[in-house]
Amino acid sequence: MFLHHTHKKANLVSAAIALALGVSSIGSATPLFAATHPNLVINAGDVDAMQGAVNTPGRFRNAFLASKKSVDESLQVPVAVPVPLDAGGGYTHEQHKNNYQLMYSAGVLYQITGDAKYAERVRDMLIAYSELYPTLPLHPKRRPDADNPGKLFWQSLNEAVWLVYTIQAYDLVRTALTDSEAEKIEQGLLRPVARFLSIESPETFNKVHNHGTWLTAGVGMTGYVLDEQELVEQSLLDLEKSGKGGFLQQLNTLFSPDGYYNEGPYYQRYALMPFVTFAKAIDNNEPEREIFSYRDGALLKAIDTSIQLSYNGLFFPINDAIKSKGIDTSELVQGVAIAYGKTGNPQLLDIAQKQQQILLTGDGLKVAQALDAGEKRAYDFRSAVFRDGKDGDEGALVVMRQKIGSDQALVFKPAAQGMGHGHFDKLSWQFYDHGSEIVTDYGSARFLNVEAKHGGRYLPENETYAKQTVAHNTVVIDETSHFNSDLKIGNSNHPELLFFHADDQIKISSASIDSAYPGVTLTRTMALVNDTDSSSTFVIDLFDVQANNNRRLDLPLHYNGQLVDTNFKLHSYTDRISALGKNNGYQHLWLKARGKPDAGLAQITWLNDNGRFYTHSTIADGRTELLFTELGANDPEFNLRSEKAFIARHDKTNAHTFVSVLEPHGEYNPSREFTLEAESRVIGLSHEREGKLELVAIDLKSGNSLLLAINGDVSATENASTSFTFRDKPYQFIGRGQLFSIND
Amino acid sequence: MFLHHTHKKANLVSAAIALALGVSSIGSATPLFAATHPNLVINAGDVDAMQGAVNTPGRFRNAFLASKKSVDESLQVPVAVPVPLDAGGGYTHEQHKNNYQLMYSAGVLYQITGDAKYAERVRDMLIAYSELYPTLPLHPKRRPDADNPGKLFWQSLNEAVWLVYTIQAYDLVRTALTDSEAEKIEQGLLRPVARFLSIESPETFNKVHNHGTWLTAGVGMTGYVLDEQELVEQSLLDLEKSGKGGFLQQLNTLFSPDGYYNEGPYYQRYALMPFVTFAKAIDNNEPEREIFSYRDGALLKAIDTSIQLSYNGLFFPINDAIKSKGIDTSELVQGVAIAYGKTGNPQLLDIAQKQQQILLTGDGLKVAQALDAGEKRAYDFRSAVFRDGKDGDEGALVVMRQKIGSDQALVFKPAAQGMGHGHFDKLSWQFYDHGSEIVTDYGSARFLNVEAKHGGRYLPENETYAKQTVAHNTVVIDETSHFNSDLKIGNSNHPELLFFHADDQIKISSASIDSAYPGVTLTRTMALVNDTDSSSTFVIDLFDVQANNNRRLDLPLHYNGQLVDTNFKLHSYTDRISALGKNNGYQHLWLKARGKPDAGLAQITWLNDNGRFYTHSTIADGRTELLFTELGANDPEFNLRSEKAFIARHDKTNAHTFVSVLEPHGEYNPSREFTLEAESRVIGLSHEREGKLELVAIDLKSGNSLLLAINGDVSATENASTSFTFRDKPYQFIGRGQLFSIND
Repeated sequence: MFLHHTHKKANLVSAAIALALGVSSIGSATPLFAATHPNLVINAGDVDAMQGAVNTPGRFRNAFLASKKSVDESLQVPVAVPVPLDAGGGYTHEQHKNNYQLMYSAGVLYQITGDAKYAERVRDMLIAYSELYPTLPLHPKRRPDADNPGKLFWQSLNEAVWLVYTIQAYDLVRTALTDSEAEKIEQGLLRPVARFLSIESPETFNKVHNHGTWLTAGVGMTGYVLDEQELVEQSLLDLEKSGKGGFLQQLNTLFSPDGYYNEGPYYQRYALMPFVTFAKAIDNNEPEREIFSYRDGALLKAIDTSIQLSYNGLFFPINDAIKSKGIDTSELVQGVAIAYGKTGNPQLLDIAQKQQQILLTGDGLKVAQALDAGEKRAYDFRSAVFRDGKDGDEGALVVMRQKIGSDQALVFKPAAQGMGHGHFDKLSWQFYDHGSEIVTDYGSARFLNVEAKHGGRYLPENETYAKQTVAHNTVVIDETSHFNSDLKIGNSNHPELLFFHADDQIKISSASIDSAYPGVTLTRTMALVNDTDSSSTFVIDLFDVQANNNRRLDLPLHYNGQLVDTNFKLHSYTDRISALGKNNGYQHLWLKARGKPDAGLAQITWLNDNGRFYTHSTIADGRTELLFTELGANDPEFNLRSEKAFIARHDKTNAHTFVSVLEPHGEYNPSREFTLEAESRVIGLSHEREGKLELVAIDLKSGNSLLLAINGDVSATENASTSFTFRDKPYQFIGRGQLFSIND
Repeated sequence: MFLHHTHKKANLVSAAIALALGVSSIGSATPLFAATHPNLVINAGDVDAMQGAVNTPGRFRNAFLASKKSVDESLQVPVAVPVPLDAGGGYTHEQHKNNYQLMYSAGVLYQITGDAKYAERVRDMLIAYSELYPTLPLHPKRRPDADNPGKLFWQSLNEAVWLVYTIQAYDLVRTALTDSEAEKIEQGLLRPVARFLSIESPETFNKVHNHGTWLTAGVGMTGYVLDEQELVEQSLLDLEKSGKGGFLQQLNTLFSPDGYYNEGPYYQRYALMPFVTFAKAIDNNEPEREIFSYRDGALLKAIDTSIQLSYNGLFFPINDAIKSKGIDTSELVQGVAIAYGKTGNPQLLDIAQKQQQILLTGDGLKVAQALDAGEKRAYDFRSAVFRDGKDGDEGALVVMRQKIGSDQALVFKPAAQGMGHGHFDKLSWQFYDHGSEIVTDYGSARFLNVEAKHGGRYLPENETYAKQTVAHNTVVIDETSHFNSDLKIGNSNHPELLFFHADDQIKISSASIDSAYPGVTLTRTMALVNDTDSSSTFVIDLFDVQANNNRRLDLPLHYNGQLVDTNFKLHSYTDRISALGKNNGYQHLWLKARGKPDAGLAQITWLNDNGRFYTHSTIADGRTELLFTELGANDPEFNLRSEKAFIARHDKTNAHTFVSVLEPHGEYNPSREFTLEAESRVIGLSHEREGKLELVAIDLKSGNSLLLAINGDVSATENASTSFTFRDKPYQFIGRGQLFSIND
């Protein structure tokens, strides 16, 4: 006998399919509560539409058939709900992850096909869990001194993720369960997990942090399914319903007004999942909350910003980030589908196409149908400021892009610390060209889920190297990291964005911070410019340091590739190399060579794996030393990648401006046996500052020069006019700045 | 007025096209000699066919239009024939390369279209060269003490390449030239170049070596075009027409009977170009020589072997090789087209498709039409022995392949030295899996044509590191390279291939050498096996060393990736590291860590960039030490790549067998956040030798074992039966060996 869905129409269709397919069915049930099922991310209307769509050729049907094949194979394997033992990567950890994924997928297939075998597998697993869960102590692999242990997993975060999927699976099969089965599952499993993750984990539950979002999402969705409005209210407002914590406060606080999540894009996409999932469930259950319009559409902005903070499909790896994560991540697949369902913006289809994954949800169906109909439009990747902080006044992440021959992106980071996953990298930058990362950020030191590497968790070197200032492309004072590596001080301070401007020829931004080091003001102005005459592009970098007494200033640049040439003599260490320093990341850098260029232009050229040359030119004053390093010292377990950097060191100084230009050029093509433009066009570089006017001149081999003039007045308007004389000729420009071509 | 081709029909067609296109024409000429033009790689029949084909949509027409567009653009730039100044990568070097390429392409377009502008550009360039060439001294960037200087280029090799293209260009436009133009070009340029490359470069011209092939090809083709049979004879038989040198002797000697070129595939594809080009010209001019059937079809075998010695499109980088070279190289495009023209073998179309380049020749047309017609068949990449030496008795290169989940290839190198580009790497190996190089060969130390890197030539580190034994995956005795790095000794000795066998489950080969070190016999047996039950594959490696007294034995394994785990304690050098040794490549290796495993199984696991784990398991005897190194010591100019290795060291021993197994396993997918099978299945390893019987048992985590039994008797037949007892059970097998699955 086939079961009654609460939603009658879907029920009949499913029943028809079930009869047609000759599938089995399981025992009857009436709902314990008044709640409609399913009604979280997928509702009854979605089920109707999906049931119709799976019979029509196209992306959605293909996704359905692929999921069905995969789940049908998984159903051949017996249920396994093992006693939790392992950390990430270990058997029990992976099995519990597989279980929630299978339960969710089987639940969806049950709704689409009505085939009881899917509901039966979910039921059997839930029953097994409901017998196991009450017997569990805290997880044996929990971190001893942490306040976030789990039971099924080593931390409560994973337990909350488990709940987010599992409650949806339960919702999807609820109508297939008998009352006593439902009672057993709710009493033995769902309520205890929800209790464990809320009142028994108050610190994490109430915390305004992505772990908190997962916990509130899991518990809140459980509230909807069990018709426990109290759980919903606690999830939205915190355990005390004070509004100081909870989902809404997380939405108020964790994203900036520009949709930037202050841990950076790697965690932004992770944080998005519970936000969009729970928001979709809220929208289905309490549409009157207008959750997607909440705070000026914060969630939709956050989805757009996640996409904007990527290059060639991968997220900018700022802060603790695993570098292979990109826009095809499952969280953003969900986010893009839900956003498309809400907005119908055809640019989202461009991203959905790149994700190459269609969700079996109502929104996934809309995406699939629109892609089938060829409705996608190119996504508009912008040069833009993404303000940081809940009120948008705690610095910013700045992205400058141009498309001259190839896509280029410059990421400038006068952003706030970004809590526990933040790095001490104020005013750092990264650069991308021709599809590759050129000026690099190490990301995090971690091998996710690789048991042999500290259980797959963050490695010790994440603290001792990856977070330290010297691991980034920004100034280090006295071999000490920003905020003296103190997270609390970091979190309570931030840089100031001074200005940002973008037009066709120049993108430019400036920011400063006086709290990274006591008595020191750091000001950096970065520009991405292109000279259409010579088809050349340059990154211009002015890093000004003003200190109250003499300091050691180090400005590292981390690069991918092979050193090709320097225009100054190198003293290389040949038989023996030593760590560059003792602490703050310096202990991990081998010093391989050093050089002290004469006053003039110091140039370093490297070649990356894609066969493009990059020349970094700096004004040398006869006092600047260049140190060439390779990562890997004091790394007894081989946890670090071997990466390369050079560090411009200006010692015993209280005021210095590092003036540099990076030029991508030429091509090394050993396969086709040609090498083009292996040498930089830059033969001279000068910098002048007159009041708020900054002038950077790049002299080129051709005899021409490029002159970037910047009006550094923070309050300058778009119409501000600036006049000046350079090399005996008068110039004028309007607004923030202009690039002048000076022909010989 | 339009010109007369010697070949009347083509002439008329071209004239018709020329009239239709309204193109210009240049002065009249009658041939100085009786030679037909064109008649080198392209003959009159080819021209006819191409003229017809460019009007039909398809690959050939597309290639024609692309070439026409590119050449038409080049014709906008004035002729530049600069006085030679630069080495590879420099302006004049690249300009003279561009010139011959443009002359050749323009010559072809002249034949196809009849448009005189193409012939005019070739004429103008040739006239300019004929004025410049007689004034030239030897090239200023020639190597002071070398016997192979050029005039247009720093070495005569490049000059010969220039001639191979230029004589074809001349042949293609000859009919468009006046007699006085032709006279000027022949007297001022072609005869002097041919003379310079033959009687004025006797050592290189007569040398049985790829430089000699280029010189004889250029000069011989010039002989055909100028109707100078003497030049042809000298090219075929050497300057004295003795047959001791020259093209035929090169064909007799440079390729083995299996078509293996003893410098390895990187130079094989380079050497192929003049061979197949000149052979095609010989075939057109003197078909009675049956040059493609010469020596049992040596040239066609050489083309097949070049393809066989590749993986995922790239050549195995043995000896001096640039690692990005692959089957899409222009030389092999020519080779595959000519071979297809001769044989019509549809498997060649598979390679042609991957090359994605259609030649504007008669053979190129045949390839294009066959690809258009969908006639391609999958190329048969084989497990095979490629015997080395002109008589096939100087060792061999062995390739073992299997396709279990992914394509795997094991390259085992008991090949001869390979002359000046050979490495001291007897019995070395490489391994490929899932599209990547796993156990690596450094290739050559060179940045081709990058002026800043020693003029783009081989770097000093090519001698001091890349050629040395320790840079390879084979045994080094007493930190000294094979043959004490003496090329002469190397060239006059070689390993012996003992046996080779391939069936579905096992591929196995063995070889030995007693001349690499006085008083030492090295014998290596390698197998690539698969266990279909567990879908697992293993490389099994038995390296036996027998010495006349106690020695230090080092067996390095070079790998790509990140060290994940060892099952023994590592002593890592943290604050300071030193070079491992003083000489023979050891001076370039930083010693990062060392460990001395207890007797039992020593395991090392690494993770490669494609997210696959590899575990190397060795039988430890309590005396074997493992040294972990990174390349880069004594490299003051940053010429070397940072690559990783571990070295199994057995000190003060006169007899030892290194017994190892390499297992690819699992997947690290940080993007999708899962990690599978990060640990090896191997938990035990044993090796027994009883007479000629070798038994290697691999004990697996599952409780099962795999037992590889090998009949090591060199003279064993396919029907030889071997019986033995293992762990108290009797076994029997027929032939070379068998893999037994032992279930618990």
